[in-house]
Amino acid sequence: MSVDKVVLALDGMGGDHAPEVVVNGADIARERYPGASFLLFGDPDRLKPLVDRRKGLAQVLEIVPAADAVSADDKPSFALRRRRQSSMWLAVDAAAQGRADTVVSAGNTGALLAISMMAMRMLPGAHRPALASFIPTSRGETVMLDLGANLECDAENLAEFAVMGSVFAQVLLGLSAPTVGLLNVGSEELKGHEELRQAALWLRREGSPVSFQGFVEGNDIGTGKVDVVVTDGFTGNVALKTIEGTAKLYTSFVREAFRTSTFAKIGALFASGALVKMRKRVDPRRYNGGVFVGLDGVCVKSHGGTDALGFAYAIGMAIDMVRYEYKSKLVEGLAKLHEVTARAEAPVLQAGGGGS
Amino acid sequence: MSVDKVVLALDGMGGDHAPEVVVNGADIARERYPGASFLLFGDPDRLKPLVDRRKGLAQVLEIVPAADAVSADDKPSFALRRRRQSSMWLAVDAAAQGRADTVVSAGNTGALLAISMMAMRMLPGAHRPALASFIPTSRGETVMLDLGANLECDAENLAEFAVMGSVFAQVLLGLSAPTVGLLNVGSEELKGHEELRQAALWLRREGSPVSFQGFVEGNDIGTGKVDVVVTDGFTGNVALKTIEGTAKLYTSFVREAFRTSTFAKIGALFASGALVKMRKRVDPRRYNGGVFVGLDGVCVKSHGGTDALGFAYAIGMAIDMVRYEYKSKLVEGLAKLHEVTARAEAPVLQAGGGGS
Repeated sequence: MSVDKVVLALDGMGGDHAPEVVVNGADIARERYPGASFLLFGDPDRLKPLVDRRKGLAQVLEIVPAADAVSADDKPSFALRRRRQSSMWLAVDAAAQGRADTVVSAGNTGALLAISMMAMRMLPGAHRPALASFIPTSRGETVMLDLGANLECDAENLAEFAVMGSVFAQVLLGLSAPTVGLLNVGSEELKGHEELRQAALWLRREGSPVSFQGFVEGNDIGTGKVDVVVTDGFTGNVALKTIEGTAKLYTSFVREAFRTSTFAKIGALFASGALVKMRKRVDPRRYNGGVFVGLDGVCVKSHGGTDALGFAYAIGMAIDMVRYEYKSKLVEGLAKLHEVTARAEAPVLQAGGGGS
Repeated sequence: MSVDKVVLALDGMGGDHAPEVVVNGADIARERYPGASFLLFGDPDRLKPLVDRRKGLAQVLEIVPAADAVSADDKPSFALRRRRQSSMWLAVDAAAQGRADTVVSAGNTGALLAISMMAMRMLPGAHRPALASFIPTSRGETVMLDLGANLECDAENLAEFAVMGSVFAQVLLGLSAPTVGLLNVGSEELKGHEELRQAALWLRREGSPVSFQGFVEGNDIGTGKVDVVVTDGFTGNVALKTIEGTAKLYTSFVREAFRTSTFAKIGALFASGALVKMRKRVDPRRYNGGVFVGLDGVCVKSHGGTDALGFAYAIGMAIDMVRYEYKSKLVEGLAKLHEVTARAEAPVLQAGGGGS
């Protein structure tokens, strides 16, 4: 484990179980990631007693008072304008101004997106941020984006998301050339919206910064056919929640099946170790943490309902994004992409024999 | 079981395992549904020996020669123009011309859609056909549409699909007032494409022919929160395939978990009855069969890879659609919807106090 110093700004008041989960999550992460230190934003009267109970944590954590908090019901526009003194705004601002390297919040997703866009701005070459995260597959995990930051996306957005997802997989999964697919429908007559076709054309060209595998379908997500699945925020959000719902349904089917008879109950006893192992494999806490990629800063969104272990995973994701230089790698990838799209806009006959 | 006569046109050459699966499926359906008889389209040299082996079937089935067959790789436009003598075209045409009450095919989906639109045309009040089918949920099953007939949908399409899905659930699930939801994303700032908001406005109005419950999210599909989930064909196709992929992934996780240790293997032996029961519950054959709703005719698409039992389920669906008068109920529902949309286009202040 590297011991590079990373300073994390934490939104102490965001999430269903704040501030306890935030403080306990930071304590778990402190042991896992030597070199990490924390600026914890929020109400000192509530935070200090929690931190003081954990001696090791108190040595690497500073409480920064924030008089206000974003609530789960706040509209993004309201949070953006009226919650300037909230723990979320101040934490994001610390990361945007360079007092911290990254920010982690379990608070209101829409507000966090709006505030980080305002405070951090976009990286050169990125037009819109996307929400990226991991999905469990039979081969391990796949990166999927956009999971809901953009309702509608044009071809350029999708091509940029492909680069963002590819760099994300390089940095967090340690892959040198992650494979990338665009989510589409299968039947011949439906071969995709125009923007999907255009994005695919660019990504296939010579010089493209991603290892593009073409279109994938919904059933390819679970098999891990590609390392990165790219889609618009509407489709991505529906697909992500559909996966969550189906996983929950099957878990309940298995549970019910083991209750149907005495034989089945005995079977469940013998198999309990295996079932625990299976649950660990798809433990949502391991997949906790989405990143708003494309911003000139690293902003990690933890699930609002997660526990301390899940929050620690989100912190780990933020640390890895900083240590493995996500931002500079992404700027490089986007520059390559835009060379390809600029070339592609020149008349085809003069554009050289590029593209496979 | 009603003994009303229903004549089914079957595409004898469509699907991965045609013609065997078609003939065997018809034989299973014949026992289940007294009163059903069949026009089987295809190559007599291949069909006759299969049918002759089943005495009961031969009495209620007539082979109609078709010189050609649509292949799985045919583009819809090609099949439409160049496969006029195919088993698919002739079977659809028989249902369109009234020589059969309904048609069932396990062949090329895009070709089947194109051919039935051409041969059957739309029902009064329906602008586009949608592909509707069942999805297993924790409460039983939910109807979902459009699963891929239309890449992009406007508000009127979506509102019509809501009516089509509602009548589908009335007829096939026996519900008197099925609940209907529009698939959308959750976060506040993203509350849906404009066409979703407009469709929701119409469906909420007084006089609306459906019991509209508002927006639902991807995770609500699996819980069976509503009886009918309405979406555009792109999102629906992605969601359906994502469900299939996730289900397959979890099944493999369970299987692998039971192989991890001797204890687990013993557990699996004790629990095998329960696991079989669970598999039956989500048996894809039970959910085989999608219907192109909105057409002036009943056209059922069986999964191309299904077995005889699955094909028999698709036949059962077609029979129920005819017996419980899907078409006339849908025309009535669509007329009510268009009264509401016409009224809604009048200035709001004069439109009365309608809508909840």
